[in-house]
Amino acid sequence: MRHSCAHAVAAAIERLYPGTKFGVGPVVEHGFYYDVDTPEPLTELDLKKIEKEAKKIMGRGLDFERQEMPIDDAITFFKEKGQDYKVSLLTDLKERGTTKMSAEELQDVGEKVDIVSLYKTGDFVDLCRGPHVENTKQIGAFKLTKLAGAYWRGDEKNAQLQRIYGLCFETKELLDEYLLLLEEAKRRDHRKLGKELDLFTFSELVGPGLPLWTPKGTLMRNILDEYVWKLRSAKGYQKVEIPHITKKELYETSGHWQKFSEELFKITTREGHEFAMKPMNCPHHTQIYDRKKWSYRELPQRYANTTMCYRDEQTGELHGLSRVRSFTQDDAHVFCRQSQVKEEFLKIWDIISSFYDAAGFDALSVRLSLHDPQNFEAYLGTPELWEKAESALREIATERGVDFVEEPGEAAFYGPKVDFITKDSIGREWQVATIQLDINMPERFNLSCVNEDGIDERIVMIHAAIMGSIERFMSILIEHHAGAFPTWMCPVQVQIIPVSNENHLAGSRKIAEQLEIEGMRVYVDDVDETVGKKIRRATQEKIPYMLVVGDREIAGEDLTVRMRGQEEQVAMSMVEFVKKLSEEISV
Amino acid sequence: MRHSCAHAVAAAIERLYPGTKFGVGPVVEHGFYYDVDTPEPLTELDLKKIEKEAKKIMGRGLDFERQEMPIDDAITFFKEKGQDYKVSLLTDLKERGTTKMSAEELQDVGEKVDIVSLYKTGDFVDLCRGPHVENTKQIGAFKLTKLAGAYWRGDEKNAQLQRIYGLCFETKELLDEYLLLLEEAKRRDHRKLGKELDLFTFSELVGPGLPLWTPKGTLMRNILDEYVWKLRSAKGYQKVEIPHITKKELYETSGHWQKFSEELFKITTREGHEFAMKPMNCPHHTQIYDRKKWSYRELPQRYANTTMCYRDEQTGELHGLSRVRSFTQDDAHVFCRQSQVKEEFLKIWDIISSFYDAAGFDALSVRLSLHDPQNFEAYLGTPELWEKAESALREIATERGVDFVEEPGEAAFYGPKVDFITKDSIGREWQVATIQLDINMPERFNLSCVNEDGIDERIVMIHAAIMGSIERFMSILIEHHAGAFPTWMCPVQVQIIPVSNENHLAGSRKIAEQLEIEGMRVYVDDVDETVGKKIRRATQEKIPYMLVVGDREIAGEDLTVRMRGQEEQVAMSMVEFVKKLSEEISV
Repeated sequence: MRHSCAHAVAAAIERLYPGTKFGVGPVVEHGFYYDVDTPEPLTELDLKKIEKEAKKIMGRGLDFERQEMPIDDAITFFKEKGQDYKVSLLTDLKERGTTKMSAEELQDVGEKVDIVSLYKTGDFVDLCRGPHVENTKQIGAFKLTKLAGAYWRGDEKNAQLQRIYGLCFETKELLDEYLLLLEEAKRRDHRKLGKELDLFTFSELVGPGLPLWTPKGTLMRNILDEYVWKLRSAKGYQKVEIPHITKKELYETSGHWQKFSEELFKITTREGHEFAMKPMNCPHHTQIYDRKKWSYRELPQRYANTTMCYRDEQTGELHGLSRVRSFTQDDAHVFCRQSQVKEEFLKIWDIISSFYDAAGFDALSVRLSLHDPQNFEAYLGTPELWEKAESALREIATERGVDFVEEPGEAAFYGPKVDFITKDSIGREWQVATIQLDINMPERFNLSCVNEDGIDERIVMIHAAIMGSIERFMSILIEHHAGAFPTWMCPVQVQIIPVSNENHLAGSRKIAEQLEIEGMRVYVDDVDETVGKKIRRATQEKIPYMLVVGDREIAGEDLTVRMRGQEEQVAMSMVEFVKKLSEEISV
Repeated sequence: MRHSCAHAVAAAIERLYPGTKFGVGPVVEHGFYYDVDTPEPLTELDLKKIEKEAKKIMGRGLDFERQEMPIDDAITFFKEKGQDYKVSLLTDLKERGTTKMSAEELQDVGEKVDIVSLYKTGDFVDLCRGPHVENTKQIGAFKLTKLAGAYWRGDEKNAQLQRIYGLCFETKELLDEYLLLLEEAKRRDHRKLGKELDLFTFSELVGPGLPLWTPKGTLMRNILDEYVWKLRSAKGYQKVEIPHITKKELYETSGHWQKFSEELFKITTREGHEFAMKPMNCPHHTQIYDRKKWSYRELPQRYANTTMCYRDEQTGELHGLSRVRSFTQDDAHVFCRQSQVKEEFLKIWDIISSFYDAAGFDALSVRLSLHDPQNFEAYLGTPELWEKAESALREIATERGVDFVEEPGEAAFYGPKVDFITKDSIGREWQVATIQLDINMPERFNLSCVNEDGIDERIVMIHAAIMGSIERFMSILIEHHAGAFPTWMCPVQVQIIPVSNENHLAGSRKIAEQLEIEGMRVYVDDVDETVGKKIRRATQEKIPYMLVVGDREIAGEDLTVRMRGQEEQVAMSMVEFVKKLSEEISV
């Protein structure tokens, strides 16, 4: 249906702008796009016109008629119509086969080289693999949403076309619902809120994908990280620290040099040595474990380390904090015996549950990410090792008594994972925490302990990130709460607003001190502005509590409290306020 | 005298091993070395023989006779003696001049190209710039200490010679004193102690100069860093966080790309962009400051950030934690008005004093590090800006009322510094903390605030690292205390040793819990070994307090306390022990 909608839209464009040359027009999530080369560039205003014309065409109830023809005939056909892009696509298909086609292009050309199919709707004929709905009346509700530039075949050396994006749903209700979701997602966009709440910034000079953290953002990161540490510390973890670079040899041993090569930032030193920036921490941590010989009595060794990793992402793929070139992992690795895996896994599972609960997310869903048996060369190790590791995870998840799905092909290259997925407040799903069982790194780094019989025993590793990437987690957190975070993690929990700086500043500071002694983060807004303006600012910054402090409050009467999201002020004694807040921030 | 000693040693070698070819033999701190190519390789045993022969020569009271000759004659002279290395040096001097000579080589060849000087001692004649003592009797006490490999002219493509190191002092007393110091320094060597105390490790696979921090070492780093943070926090600092890489453009703007180029780790991304790993944090921090427009009322902005920096040091220059490729700066930058410089400087000075006092160092000496007027092209900015900045520092140091020395040529390339120098317990001096005034970065990054008149005003930056490089500071700290750190910073403050695991482990754990509630770091040694062995281990790990716990201690009687460095055990009630320790660890 979505593909059929794209055809109807293209038909409308051909009617309105004769001479338009068409690129590809594939289906994407919730809709489609079509790349077009019109005689005059289109503007946003034209989209309305095209939408109207397409609706007219759909209303006429035209059939989609399929026709197959030899590729040479198709080339002649499109050449006569002046459709140069289609001709180029077909010529390429003929000469070089389907392997040189992108997934989007394949939607048009199909998977055979000798015969291609065309679809006709009224006067409009397009190269297309199909299938389509039978009649344009069967196309649901649609909307053209956006106009962007796109190079022919994604190569900036080629001509630039215009890409028209459209949404298409079965019914108008579904379309409207989705448009509302888009609206809401835009309102919650972490890039917009991050700036408004002054949490992070980007610099042209430092470069895209490399976020810089402001004092408020850094404080919030640290609050989250310290909470994870509190949970870990109770389970016997210890912190370690590592450099962010290494000789190539470490990654040749771990397998990252081969499996991760494209995304590695590589360095050649002035002496000609090859180094790399770390994309993960596990290989470094193995070297801390490996500094001495361990007795089984000393295991598990549990190393925690919040540290940045780096991946050479392409500029076009970067997005706010969600996809960056430098990200902070709240990483941990447990080095233990096979017999300790279950207990350690369940401990981490506890930490994950506590953390996401405190961060205001509903119950997480669970996925077992397994290897893809069709593509075994993408992984390290033997099928037997994988079989053993995957059974162990299945057993643990079953014992934990949760529903879970199994997903082949989602494993890490060194072992299977238990992934945790959260649904945010507008229904979007995000993979967050992960626990991974690794039977391969210990093998490659020859990690062992001396067992009860005095014999070297191969150990296993468990990889456990709670937030995963703090950057990505923050983006989810910001959008989930629309910036109105749970009080315990807010950089400022209470904003104090003196009615007048002249008369109430000293008194405000005193109240702030009292609250700070109780462990609260308080800010006294001493800028010389009206109370109204100060309240508006604190509201925009989504600070949980405001105290407006005038003569009566300083005299020790009830505090005047404004709570986030509530219009009315509440009177409360200091003792009551402290009690309420203390309860709220204890996690 | 030291150079004369080198000649006497060479004369001895020529007598003992006829046919020896000599490389260079320069003076170094406390002595000299001589590179030699003997017919048969020397062993450590030969050093004694050479020492004896050299003493004999010195005893003969030979004069040092200077002789000048045209360079061509000298070439012929050494050619006839078969001294190929001297010939090669002289030929190079003749053809390419003194600029291609190293500082060590210049000690031999002198600074003129046409005439060279030779020194004769008995039968031995050497190419040498001089000067020398008059007679071998005037050479003091000496000792040959070490034999090492050295490539001719430092190039591994050339022949490998043997390098003989010697010490030489005016008197035997001074030599013995220095040998004792070396012995003591060896005993305190942080590389040896770091391993014994299990603080850090190196890995062949990760590479030299890239330390990995164990749980104990990480804990200690964090304790030190948190103490710095406590001091800073009280002065209004805020934490920020930054990625460890940047686009080249940031360093082109800051000047690091030009001034720091050799030591930068450079990266080319898969898209062909040029990136670098940060060797400093100031350029990144300017971009956090520059995220918004500031009113003068919001200044100073004080950003603190403990984070790793990277420098492409050559392998031969690396040394334990003192000289590494990745080091952690406890960095901070204050962005303030010119009028706020003095107050901010004095605040940092307070932090430095408190910190080094708590870390067990005596009063620091102070150096004003100024620019070198003879070499102004090494710096950014104008002479006027430098003049102004240096006067400001002089005024602050004077106001602080301390003695200070001024050292031209020791400034950073962007501004003058106040450097703090400590003397360790065996008399060695180390530069530790630094406060730098920077008038250039704000200029280059166009950093300003809006002043009282609504006009943009250029601000200044203050760079303030307290420990400087945590790695280097740890190396000094370890050697200063010989591993017996002040109790407040010890990873383990109290080691509890159950007399028998079977009967006293549970009771030991209970005592540990009580102490942990009081904020102490306690470890219960539950390995199945004798009490004697456990005491020896805790002694080797230099843990401040040991509690040996048996029936009586569990019954609530006095604790049996062993204090670090004391042979006798002391009986003390729990209350007394907690009081004593609490006082000791409060910083």
